[in-house]
Amino acid sequence: MAAPPLGLDEVRDAERRLRGRIHRTPLLTCAGLDRMAGRRLLFKCELLQRTGSFKIRGALNAVRSLVEHSERTGRELPRAVVTHSSGNHGQALACAAQAEGIPAYIVVPRTAPQCKQDAIRAYGAILVPCDPSDKSRAETASSVVQETGGVLVHPNQEPAVIAGQGTIALEVLEQVRAMHSPAPAGAQQKGDTKCQEPSHFPSTQAPYVNAVVVPVGGGGMVAGIAVAIKALRPDVKVFAAEPSNVDDCYQSKVRGELTPNLHPRDTIADAVKTSIGPNTWPIIRDLVDDVLTVSEEEIKRATWLVWERMKLLIEPTAGVGLAAVLSEQFQAVPRDVQNICIVLCGGNVDLRSLTWLTDLSGKAE
Amino acid sequence: MAAPPLGLDEVRDAERRLRGRIHRTPLLTCAGLDRMAGRRLLFKCELLQRTGSFKIRGALNAVRSLVEHSERTGRELPRAVVTHSSGNHGQALACAAQAEGIPAYIVVPRTAPQCKQDAIRAYGAILVPCDPSDKSRAETASSVVQETGGVLVHPNQEPAVIAGQGTIALEVLEQVRAMHSPAPAGAQQKGDTKCQEPSHFPSTQAPYVNAVVVPVGGGGMVAGIAVAIKALRPDVKVFAAEPSNVDDCYQSKVRGELTPNLHPRDTIADAVKTSIGPNTWPIIRDLVDDVLTVSEEEIKRATWLVWERMKLLIEPTAGVGLAAVLSEQFQAVPRDVQNICIVLCGGNVDLRSLTWLTDLSGKAE
Repeated sequence: MAAPPLGLDEVRDAERRLRGRIHRTPLLTCAGLDRMAGRRLLFKCELLQRTGSFKIRGALNAVRSLVEHSERTGRELPRAVVTHSSGNHGQALACAAQAEGIPAYIVVPRTAPQCKQDAIRAYGAILVPCDPSDKSRAETASSVVQETGGVLVHPNQEPAVIAGQGTIALEVLEQVRAMHSPAPAGAQQKGDTKCQEPSHFPSTQAPYVNAVVVPVGGGGMVAGIAVAIKALRPDVKVFAAEPSNVDDCYQSKVRGELTPNLHPRDTIADAVKTSIGPNTWPIIRDLVDDVLTVSEEEIKRATWLVWERMKLLIEPTAGVGLAAVLSEQFQAVPRDVQNICIVLCGGNVDLRSLTWLTDLSGKAE
Repeated sequence: MAAPPLGLDEVRDAERRLRGRIHRTPLLTCAGLDRMAGRRLLFKCELLQRTGSFKIRGALNAVRSLVEHSERTGRELPRAVVTHSSGNHGQALACAAQAEGIPAYIVVPRTAPQCKQDAIRAYGAILVPCDPSDKSRAETASSVVQETGGVLVHPNQEPAVIAGQGTIALEVLEQVRAMHSPAPAGAQQKGDTKCQEPSHFPSTQAPYVNAVVVPVGGGGMVAGIAVAIKALRPDVKVFAAEPSNVDDCYQSKVRGELTPNLHPRDTIADAVKTSIGPNTWPIIRDLVDDVLTVSEEEIKRATWLVWERMKLLIEPTAGVGLAAVLSEQFQAVPRDVQNICIVLCGGNVDLRSLTWLTDLSGKAE
C-alpha cells in the first residue's frame, strides 16, 4: 500500500491556519431519526459553516498557505487564484481570496444552480463559464491560469484543500470528547453551547463515535477526514456515501483501481457529480472502510427528513450520508457501530427549484 | 404600575426544572443579514429546540411543577393535562406529559397545519378538534377538563408556562457573556461548541446584547423574557414583534388597556394569531419597551432570508422578529442599540404548503 500523500501533521497545520477564521459548527442530534436508524446519529452541521458549506476549510487553508509561503519567502502574493467548481468550492475560494485581497477566477459549469453563481459574484470573484464536464472545467481553468498568471486551487485534488477538509474530523472528535467529559462545575453558567440533547446521554452510556459517514464527489472531504480519523482513532470506521448514478468511488474500490465516471448520469446531489482523482484515490483506497451507494429516491427522502425533523435546510448532496445510514445495506454494518457521525456538508440549495420536494411530500411519510 | 404576577425567582425555578431535559439551543450569527440590518444580529435558534419550538420550555415547566407538587404533598398526579393550541404548545405539552406518564388532551383548531397535528398524535396525545376561534378553543378545553378531571395548562396565560419561556432570556444572557469572556486556555480543545463567528468579535468590541426581539401572539414568550431581562439587565430593550394583521398587542400598548382581536385577520404567521391575555398584558404593559408591527410581505421576505442565508428552516412566525428589525420603522431605534438578539421561535413549517415561498422567490432578491 502506498503511503498517503498527506498526513495528520498537514491537517493539524490546517487547523491552526483556520482557527478563528471559520465557524465551529454544532454537532446536533435528532431522537426521531435515531429511532428510524436504530443507532445514535450525530450530525456535523457544515451547512451552517461560512459560505454555506465545508468547502471554506480547504479553500482558506490553501489561500492561507500561499500567504504564509509569501510571508516566509518574501515573495509577492500570487496574482490570482483560479479554480473550477460546481459552486461550493467556488464560493469558498472567492470568500477566502477576498479576505486576503487576492483576485479569484472561478470556472463554473453553465448548469450550476443560480444561487451558487450569485454567491460567488457576491464575494467579488470573476466567473468564467464552462461546459458541464470534468474535461471542459479542467481545460477552461488551465487557460485562465495561463492568462492571469494565477495559481490553480483544485477543488478536491489539491493537498492543502484535502488537509483543510480533514479539520472536520478533528472538530468532531473534540466535540464527542466534550460530550463525554463530565461537565466542570459551573459549566452551565459559563454558557458553553450544548447543541446535543443531554438527556440522551446518561453518564453510563458514552456517546463515543464509532463511524463517520461522508458524501464523496472528488473525495477531498472523505480523504481528509480519513487521514485524521485513522491517525487518531483507527477503530473508527470511515464510510464514503455516493449516489448510485455517479458511483465512480464505489467502482474504484471494487476494482482496486481509479475508475472515473467518463459519462456520469444526472443526480440531484449536484455537488458530488464529479469523480475522485489521483490524490484522493490512494487515501480512499487505503483508509476508507467502505463505499455505500444510494438511489435518487433515497437521497430525496433523506433530504426531506432532515428538513422536516431537524429544521436544517441542507442541499440534497448533504442528504447522501443519512440516505446511506437509512438504507437496507447499512443493516449489514454490525450493531456495535452504534454512534455514527453524519456530515451535513452544505446548505446551498436553490430555493427556486423546490418543486421536487413538494412533489415528494406525499410519499415521504 | 401593578407588580407583574411573576418574577425572576419563578424563571430561575423553571431553569432548574428544565436542566438536562431540553436542548441548549445555539446562538447563531449571519454576516450577510448583519449587513442588511446595519446591526449585529444574534439568532436564538429555538427552532432547534425539542419538539421544534420554544414551547417545550413552558409546557415542561408546567408539567414538572405539577409532578413536584404531587411529590411534595403526597397527592396523586393529575388525571390528565389539557390545553388548546395552534399546534406548537400542543406538541410540547403532549411531549412533556408523555415523559411524565400523564395523559394529554389537546384541543386543536381544525385549520392547524397537518404536520403539527401529526406530531401531537406522535407524542401519544388525544386530539380534540375545535373551530378556529379563541372562544371555541377555550370552551372546548373547559369541557374536556370537566369530562376528564384534568388540569388545564393554558398555552400562554399559565404563569408556569410564562416562567418557562423566560428561561430563553437566561440562556441568551449566559451565551452572550460566554462570547465576551476571554476563552480559558485549552477551551478550543475542550470542544465547547462555538456557533458564532469568532472573527466578528475582536476583543475590543464586546458582543453585549442591547435588545431582544420576540414574536408575540398570546404573549407568554415575550412576557417571560421581559421579566427575566428587566430583572437582570434593565438596560436591555425588549421589543415585541407582531403581524399587522393581528396587532392586538400593539393596539393594547397604544390604548393602555388590554384590547383583544375580536375578529383577527388571517396571517401566514399562524402561531401568533391568538391575542395576549390577562396575565401577559400587565407584564407587556410594564416591561416591554415597544411593539413593532410588520406586513405579511415583510414576514415572508424575512422567512425566505433566514432559509436562504442561514439554512435554518424556520416557520413563518419565526420570521416576524427579523422582519421587524429589517423594517423601516426600526431605523428609528437608536444606533447604539447595536447587538440585537432575535428569537427564531420555531420550525414546524408544513413542507407541503411551500408554494408561497417558491412564488416569492423572484421578489426576494
